[in-house]
Amino acid sequence: MKLDSIDEWTRTHHTAEVTSEIDGKEVTLFGWVQEIRDLGGIRFIIVQDREGSLQITIPKKRVDAEVVSKSEQLQHRYIIGVKGVVKKTNMTPRGIEVVPTNIKILGIAASQLPIDITGKTPASIEARLDARALDLCQEQNVAAFKVQHTALEAIRSFLFEKGFIEVHTPRIIATATEGGAALFAVDYFGEKAYLAQSPQLYKEQLVMSFENVFEVGPFFRAEESHTRRHLSEFTSVDIEKAFASAEDVMVLLEQVIQHVCKTTLERCQKELLTLKYRLEVPKVPFKRLTYGEVLSDLKKKGAEIPWGEDIPTEAFRTLGKMYPKFYFITD
Amino acid sequence: MKLDSIDEWTRTHHTAEVTSEIDGKEVTLFGWVQEIRDLGGIRFIIVQDREGSLQITIPKKRVDAEVVSKSEQLQHRYIIGVKGVVKKTNMTPRGIEVVPTNIKILGIAASQLPIDITGKTPASIEARLDARALDLCQEQNVAAFKVQHTALEAIRSFLFEKGFIEVHTPRIIATATEGGAALFAVDYFGEKAYLAQSPQLYKEQLVMSFENVFEVGPFFRAEESHTRRHLSEFTSVDIEKAFASAEDVMVLLEQVIQHVCKTTLERCQKELLTLKYRLEVPKVPFKRLTYGEVLSDLKKKGAEIPWGEDIPTEAFRTLGKMYPKFYFITD
Repeated sequence: MKLDSIDEWTRTHHTAEVTSEIDGKEVTLFGWVQEIRDLGGIRFIIVQDREGSLQITIPKKRVDAEVVSKSEQLQHRYIIGVKGVVKKTNMTPRGIEVVPTNIKILGIAASQLPIDITGKTPASIEARLDARALDLCQEQNVAAFKVQHTALEAIRSFLFEKGFIEVHTPRIIATATEGGAALFAVDYFGEKAYLAQSPQLYKEQLVMSFENVFEVGPFFRAEESHTRRHLSEFTSVDIEKAFASAEDVMVLLEQVIQHVCKTTLERCQKELLTLKYRLEVPKVPFKRLTYGEVLSDLKKKGAEIPWGEDIPTEAFRTLGKMYPKFYFITD
Repeated sequence: MKLDSIDEWTRTHHTAEVTSEIDGKEVTLFGWVQEIRDLGGIRFIIVQDREGSLQITIPKKRVDAEVVSKSEQLQHRYIIGVKGVVKKTNMTPRGIEVVPTNIKILGIAASQLPIDITGKTPASIEARLDARALDLCQEQNVAAFKVQHTALEAIRSFLFEKGFIEVHTPRIIATATEGGAALFAVDYFGEKAYLAQSPQLYKEQLVMSFENVFEVGPFFRAEESHTRRHLSEFTSVDIEKAFASAEDVMVLLEQVIQHVCKTTLERCQKELLTLKYRLEVPKVPFKRLTYGEVLSDLKKKGAEIPWGEDIPTEAFRTLGKMYPKFYFITD
């Protein structure tokens, strides 16, 4: 099929912005074909974009023959542009439809998609990852990315407000930052280097000039473990503050977490609903547990950890049951 | 030397915030000892922090013996906290000084620093990188980091405003993104993987669900070249937009660059002055040169490049002289 060119077309509205208030207005929409229904004399195309979806109604005798012909070529996930007129109707849930004056086909799709992106037929995680681009079209996944986006924006704006400078430290490094964590080795022009596990050592030196710094970005740990507590590659938010006590830092972190939860709750209502996630803004101060208290708590639950050792994953699960909200381990 | 503990002390002001308007007020300052002068009966300490510096004046007979004793232990780059009273004076350039009631020594420094951080005695790049934490205390370096911080904040807020979603794509990948660029190899649990050179392939798939995305973060190119055009590791800003023509994208990029320059000019006046950098907000539209025009321009200057080949670094220098401002190469 010969695709249309986008040429001078510019989106005027997202589907969610088309409401009965703009009845009669001409709009230009872009999106993906989500559904097609044909009742003979009339054809319905549901077009979906990032913000929602909308019904395009094609009364075959009352629109251009070219529009009808285009609409007959459409299949699921075809990428289209639609110019048309907004019409109030009581035949759709949102009370509006668009009657097209022009349709462009900008991209096509395989007739048989590898996964059902409506989510009605759940796919295995393997099938989803093999078709990840399609999988990311599911509204739950779009919602998750928007929440992440919003959370990071909230963290940044909070820290900017507090006078923190965002820095960018090296990822390819000569030696390990932390003794315990395993490192990925990189071939650096014939010499052995490593991927950074954290910006720790850099941050500590940067506070000598910038006082308050933070970094957001990918870090790497070669821990071959199949738990939800470990990722080989993860996005880290790392904060360092000069001229502050441990208590000052804990208060700052409490404020960051509160602010992120509040902002996400405000700005991502639709997304949290989609994800069926009930987000609570945690109360401060968070519990402060000393390392000694933690060891003695765990001992009572039958987990004996020698003083000075790291707390193992299983013990953290036990702790999580005893202290289900946020807590700090101090001293 | 036994260091003092910060305890309950909290900074009330940065040195730059101490002005004659708060004459008589008690302040708590933190910073580094920049200069010490002793005139017998009176001792001056210049304390420096991220935002500037300030004179601490110690009339030995009129302050606590403990304060005098602390002040006598100070050396360059010692980290101190000062509680004291702001006093108007005509003896300092800024018209104020602080007379201390209490001094804490929070950290010490080697008596002979490896580089002169005032910049009066320039050090070689090797010496600077060997003492990078100290090097970053030079006001030019602090200024450069603040400009970078401001520029990235401006890019993000502009793109947020335009409905872009910030994404985080993988850095450890199985295959190359771009044919030309050399890859760093990573040992991924015994298998050979690579560090990503760009988010290109991911971005292209992400626009299928998020429409407009961008990513800011480190990417990696194993190009062993000693030019200012190449870095093994660099912070990339990468933008991808659905439902847009090449022209739409160029207009967007022009707007981003204008906005960044404007914001930096507004917020970083002091820093640009320190860096002696005259930043101009570029006019739009930027010149659009076709690839064909570029080849013919270069041919006139004696550089013949076969059609279809990349433009080499030397030729970009020639182009830069012909078109000294921003330009796009199209088609």
